[in-house]
Amino acid sequence: MVGRGGGVLTLSRRDLLKLAGAAGMAGAAAGCATPRSGPGPNSSREPLRDRTWQYDVDVVVVGTGAAGGVAALSAVHSGAQVLVLEKALLYGGTTAKSGGVYFVPNNSFRKGKGDESREETLHRMARYSYPQLYDPNSPQLGLPPNEYELLCALYDEGPVAVDELAKMGALISQPAESAFGPMPDYFDPTREDVIPRDRRLWPKKPDGSFGLGDEMVRQLKQGLAKYNVPVLMGHRATRILENSQGEVVGLEVTKNDGSVVNVRARRGVVFASGGFTHNREMLLHYQPGPIFGGCAVPTNEGDFVTLASAIGAKLGHMGSAWRAQVVLEQALQYSSTPDDVFMPPGDSMVLVNKHGRRVVNEKSNYNERTKIHFAWDTVDHEWTNLVLFMIYDERSAELFGGRFPIPAPGTTAPYVIQANTLEELAKAIDQRLAAHSAKLGGDRLDPAFPAELKATIARFNGFARSGVDSDFRRGELLYDRMWHSRIWSFPNPGTKWPLPKKNPTMYPIAASGPYYAILLGAGTLDTNGGPVINARAEVLNTQDHPIPGLFGAGNCIASPTGAYYYAGGGTLGPAVAFGWIAGREAAAQAPKELD
Amino acid sequence: MVGRGGGVLTLSRRDLLKLAGAAGMAGAAAGCATPRSGPGPNSSREPLRDRTWQYDVDVVVVGTGAAGGVAALSAVHSGAQVLVLEKALLYGGTTAKSGGVYFVPNNSFRKGKGDESREETLHRMARYSYPQLYDPNSPQLGLPPNEYELLCALYDEGPVAVDELAKMGALISQPAESAFGPMPDYFDPTREDVIPRDRRLWPKKPDGSFGLGDEMVRQLKQGLAKYNVPVLMGHRATRILENSQGEVVGLEVTKNDGSVVNVRARRGVVFASGGFTHNREMLLHYQPGPIFGGCAVPTNEGDFVTLASAIGAKLGHMGSAWRAQVVLEQALQYSSTPDDVFMPPGDSMVLVNKHGRRVVNEKSNYNERTKIHFAWDTVDHEWTNLVLFMIYDERSAELFGGRFPIPAPGTTAPYVIQANTLEELAKAIDQRLAAHSAKLGGDRLDPAFPAELKATIARFNGFARSGVDSDFRRGELLYDRMWHSRIWSFPNPGTKWPLPKKNPTMYPIAASGPYYAILLGAGTLDTNGGPVINARAEVLNTQDHPIPGLFGAGNCIASPTGAYYYAGGGTLGPAVAFGWIAGREAAAQAPKELD
Repeated sequence: MVGRGGGVLTLSRRDLLKLAGAAGMAGAAAGCATPRSGPGPNSSREPLRDRTWQYDVDVVVVGTGAAGGVAALSAVHSGAQVLVLEKALLYGGTTAKSGGVYFVPNNSFRKGKGDESREETLHRMARYSYPQLYDPNSPQLGLPPNEYELLCALYDEGPVAVDELAKMGALISQPAESAFGPMPDYFDPTREDVIPRDRRLWPKKPDGSFGLGDEMVRQLKQGLAKYNVPVLMGHRATRILENSQGEVVGLEVTKNDGSVVNVRARRGVVFASGGFTHNREMLLHYQPGPIFGGCAVPTNEGDFVTLASAIGAKLGHMGSAWRAQVVLEQALQYSSTPDDVFMPPGDSMVLVNKHGRRVVNEKSNYNERTKIHFAWDTVDHEWTNLVLFMIYDERSAELFGGRFPIPAPGTTAPYVIQANTLEELAKAIDQRLAAHSAKLGGDRLDPAFPAELKATIARFNGFARSGVDSDFRRGELLYDRMWHSRIWSFPNPGTKWPLPKKNPTMYPIAASGPYYAILLGAGTLDTNGGPVINARAEVLNTQDHPIPGLFGAGNCIASPTGAYYYAGGGTLGPAVAFGWIAGREAAAQAPKELD
Repeated sequence: MVGRGGGVLTLSRRDLLKLAGAAGMAGAAAGCATPRSGPGPNSSREPLRDRTWQYDVDVVVVGTGAAGGVAALSAVHSGAQVLVLEKALLYGGTTAKSGGVYFVPNNSFRKGKGDESREETLHRMARYSYPQLYDPNSPQLGLPPNEYELLCALYDEGPVAVDELAKMGALISQPAESAFGPMPDYFDPTREDVIPRDRRLWPKKPDGSFGLGDEMVRQLKQGLAKYNVPVLMGHRATRILENSQGEVVGLEVTKNDGSVVNVRARRGVVFASGGFTHNREMLLHYQPGPIFGGCAVPTNEGDFVTLASAIGAKLGHMGSAWRAQVVLEQALQYSSTPDDVFMPPGDSMVLVNKHGRRVVNEKSNYNERTKIHFAWDTVDHEWTNLVLFMIYDERSAELFGGRFPIPAPGTTAPYVIQANTLEELAKAIDQRLAAHSAKLGGDRLDPAFPAELKATIARFNGFARSGVDSDFRRGELLYDRMWHSRIWSFPNPGTKWPLPKKNPTMYPIAASGPYYAILLGAGTLDTNGGPVINARAEVLNTQDHPIPGLFGAGNCIASPTGAYYYAGGGTLGPAVAFGWIAGREAAAQAPKELD
């Protein structure tokens, strides 16, 4: 998963805003909650027979990201007639903005490479997804039955999905390690993963090179075209239609022009419509702390949570998300950010909070690192890490410029604060906070910030010299060092600056300016809570019975791997596996009557 | 809110287990998830006319805690014929175990005492309930409309409820400050609340003395009897019945013997059925970290979340709870604990984590302090504060014995670990962890624990001598000092130990043993997320329309005050206010037809 600094494919933010507006999404940008339009409480009781069905197929898939594309292809593979709906005007969902990596343990490329066994892999997944439940001596490893079965399904069916998609000519995979060599998982690598077993896959371009998320989406889209699956853009599912038996038989769909069409799904509906990163009300009511936005596409407003809740679905992992930091001032401008801060680049760089203190290993993985924003100060009764300040010097600006969010050498960005001394830097930071006060609950710097920042830098510089971070163990893990050196902080060649010798992630911050600061806040790649599915990707109701005909995959459902991010591609791997399962199972349903 | 060390009224744990079993609740104790029984996906489509209705009233109230009792009385006050259902065999819900304090700003007893204005109070509530949204210059203070209106309703209607209940002779209130003098709110008191404005109320016993939760329940129960409101014990609502218009017209109710009765509610149903502290699946899917249990009664399994979700209610604040620590080994035995640790008693006492380090101000309020258990270690990828260890010496054992969880002098408790040296104490702690390994994800002490604990104690002892805790500011807040000295750590008279001079909350830990340790984990008084209500206590659906005829109050709904605990009685105050509103509004509904 490589950072894609600046811009979504070739679209500017202005284009995005325009598209979002066109898709009726202006509300999200303005911070509105769930749309108030839509059916009233009683309207679900109308007879279905009287409707005119503009479309009539076996399986309807909602969403064109990885989960949706794979689900549609899987349904086709099982012989179904399929229709795909996409709310946005832009194809490919968040997948199209992503690195396009999918983590698939047990994939065919790993055969004979000494990988962990099924049992070992299940143990590892159970332990990290549910750390407080994990019991190695229990038959289901301490997990509730459904949670255990979902992990099994991922292990067993992920490789099937990858192989079958390749056979269909719809997604050609290759090991991601072919690009930069094997890279560590995000599982704690000090303990057991000293030699990385890289189970990440990447789309293989026709020329044999690797592709990112846009290539993944291109292949899946081409696959749908090859199998004659129509895709309706600008079509938003706004209601799930049930017959009198409570079976899902179709969707009410609102087009961008406001008109409504009825889409009949004889066998099943698969939602793959993304999370709720851009639904502020859901963030407030479900997430453990303030989230300012994230790189999820702006149409990810939790539609599946809203629609499935209306028909009695059970929700799960609603406090969870694939977390990453965002550049605060980008997110405040528009919550769908061009990119997330996967790892703050630089070695002569620290993150500090409003008190001028370090609070986290800056090189820990994005999902883990971002959680520190939710630390609550039990004495001051405030989000003490609401905003973290990425502080760096001229060295890091030059040596790592171009690694988001540090602007490329010779360029600048409005979110970068520059000053000649740390005192001036602190003053300028505080002025930015004051300017955004109404959106930050009035958060400002501690008056002690400048003095504390100096002490923090002095202490950090000692760590950089010794190579040992006694406070947060930065650079101790293989993950920190390899992802820093090879990917997120790959140094610009041809500069005057020497690289650190003892610990590649730390170098003393200069004794004199210029200094730089960037404001960071908590963000997401996307949330990953939603309706709970079982190992057949069926959505469960509040009594744990499947809702007949309703399926889900991707970030719109309760994450099958819980809140833990196993590795690069920890999002798209399960999306591919459960997308495949969902499409197959939907196609295998008996046709359902209207009534 | 005074601790009620040991025992629920006069019931032993064995009694409780027996009752829970009788009520079909054994599953909760054994860690099962939502009951699998109940209606299948399609059964809600049966015609209602064919049912036999065993009961037929205007308003049905579910639950006999404060919110339920008040709602029933309020409906009576509005002229309705009312029936109350209680799932347990024990009357009064968690209220009966509580301190019985209710926080009601603007209450009649405060007239002329220089209290904050309505506007000031709303500002304070908005700022602490929604710290990241609060904007003093916005008309709704930066809050979404519904969140703002709920705060207004609490301020405006809480006093009405208190006054009207008194007029009905159903609940006689008095200022709680009459007992121990005015006590500080939990709002950060260093900043603005230097002189406490004590807005807590307490039930006034017939003899003029103050009563706790059992007295509150006794009065409300007597009030219901006075107004001839029947209460059916051992009756669990297992389904909400709607007519073809989507209006709530009654409940399907399962009795302890497994038989089902239909209860017709012509005007409305009010749920006041408690949170989901004892539903492990909901805790896993909604809460931000591991919760082991809490003092909520065992019947609090999130029934309203399950039942209202089935008919399309919108959920809110699902990650929130009224938090307190629990004695881990009590909670592991049975998740409904006899009491919670509202403040660890003692002055020569610290809380440390598995690394032997302090992580929190031990004297901060329970709701805030408990959040530290959810700190995630981004390097070790574990809940580093999963278990905290309350370490104290002979001084605190004698001087504060009897303040839960320190056993009364001359007695002991199985959850107390005793040793002569800190090394032996560490060894004994680790053995306990090993014994509970399967329930703690294998969590064990860091090998460095004994050395770190010694260093921690040395540092703490320095703070105790100077009176200043440079790490966690223990004893700096008025809250810490007053609640410690007057309530939670009121010293036993007649012992040899002198009290600290500079800071009442800290005294050096002795250089020699015996030493004691108690394992603490995160718990709740109860969760406080659930279906979202509006300012009329109507439950909203996913489109923000009220579900006709459905109301809620107490810990079963999305907390009207969010996650913030304003003061002692911060739970029961809103329960009384919104219970009152819910009963009145339910009674005012037009009768609904069966179809």
